[in-house]
Amino acid sequence: METTLYYWPEIQGRGEFVRLALEQAAVPYTDLGREDEAAIEAFLNDAGIPTPPFAPPFLVAGPLVIAQTANILLYLGQHYGLAPNDEAGGLWTHGLQLTIADFVVEIHDTHHPIASCEYYEDQRAEAKRRTQDFLDNRAPKFLHYFERVLDRNPAGPTWAVRDALTYVDLSLFQIVAGLRYAFPRHMQRYERDLPHLAALHDRVAAQPNIAAYLESPRRIPFNTMGIFRHYPELDALK
Amino acid sequence: METTLYYWPEIQGRGEFVRLALEQAAVPYTDLGREDEAAIEAFLNDAGIPTPPFAPPFLVAGPLVIAQTANILLYLGQHYGLAPNDEAGGLWTHGLQLTIADFVVEIHDTHHPIASCEYYEDQRAEAKRRTQDFLDNRAPKFLHYFERVLDRNPAGPTWAVRDALTYVDLSLFQIVAGLRYAFPRHMQRYERDLPHLAALHDRVAAQPNIAAYLESPRRIPFNTMGIFRHYPELDALK
Repeated sequence: METTLYYWPEIQGRGEFVRLALEQAAVPYTDLGREDEAAIEAFLNDAGIPTPPFAPPFLVAGPLVIAQTANILLYLGQHYGLAPNDEAGGLWTHGLQLTIADFVVEIHDTHHPIASCEYYEDQRAEAKRRTQDFLDNRAPKFLHYFERVLDRNPAGPTWAVRDALTYVDLSLFQIVAGLRYAFPRHMQRYERDLPHLAALHDRVAAQPNIAAYLESPRRIPFNTMGIFRHYPELDALK
Repeated sequence: METTLYYWPEIQGRGEFVRLALEQAAVPYTDLGREDEAAIEAFLNDAGIPTPPFAPPFLVAGPLVIAQTANILLYLGQHYGLAPNDEAGGLWTHGLQLTIADFVVEIHDTHHPIASCEYYEDQRAEAKRRTQDFLDNRAPKFLHYFERVLDRNPAGPTWAVRDALTYVDLSLFQIVAGLRYAFPRHMQRYERDLPHLAALHDRVAAQPNIAAYLESPRRIPFNTMGIFRHYPELDALK
């Protein structure tokens, strides 16, 4: 079965959560946007598709068109052992991923609180106000929540769910890595109280397939076009 | 099996998408926050729960704790016939719901672009800027997308998915009803190009269980505390 990811070629963005899962599970896939960016718009504009996605990322897996990052991970989790098979475990894992998705929106909106289609430079004042609230209230709330999830896992704090890796662990790795890039000063402070999350980041990075991926050209570097952006004036906020 | 919804008692909010599904499927449920608001915080703070939600709404269904609106609907869809049973249909339905969830965040952020914990009155200037982009770009993009989904349904534009109601139809009803309340002037303009979506709103409202619910005291009226808020100065924007 052919598996094709459609996502923008120049950023990690939301597509990265999917790439990490595909890489960890060693699924053969084509990252089509990186070969042919125009294929994304062509698919979105194809009037013959009865199940059109709203936006990238979307995955075409054989006959299936799967839109929305968390939905793609739900599918990959079930097919490639990246989530528990039982209903309670599956719903718990997916609910965590949806909370990560909410966090990702808030991370994005620190630099784009007014309009995602306008430049950061045209919403800098608002970005400072929004980032201040993010750093004071929202980031600690989300991060401490995920630390608590690890702490309460009946199988121990090695993984977020059960006694083995799930797609949530991969996504939490990406959250930690991204926030370290975007807000290095604040993350250093937060991480004093996040031992399980910091250890999880390292554990995921050391998985053989992930380690190989991170060193490959398939891993796009963080940059100031994606979700996680490093703007020194935002990290310098108190 | 006991089914208990935990959600804030004074707003429709995200809980309303769950309430509509429970009502349509005639699931006996307790809307616990309306009887005992303190029960929500008590549950969130209960250190004995290995699968703690991040925030309401969450549903406790027998032994299951299900967090996140779209995840609750995934569960209700599978158990109460509110979604297709096959994998392709289930993923398509859930992906649509996640796009509705994205739209809901953007609707909320029109009045709270800076900080969800601060008053609207303290972020009015930013709200005007964000709402202008929402009205010009984002709302039409989402609404035309859902109109297109109805238009392309191989079973016809009666429902969003297949030839019968799903939880996505219930949520689209709520989106239309909420936007009519919040932005009556702009919705009137948009709806000239949204015949399928407007008809879907009426079709859902006429479902016997939904009609009875909407006339009951269980339906909390729209107000300026929830996601959909009517601020005349925002609807007055060009």
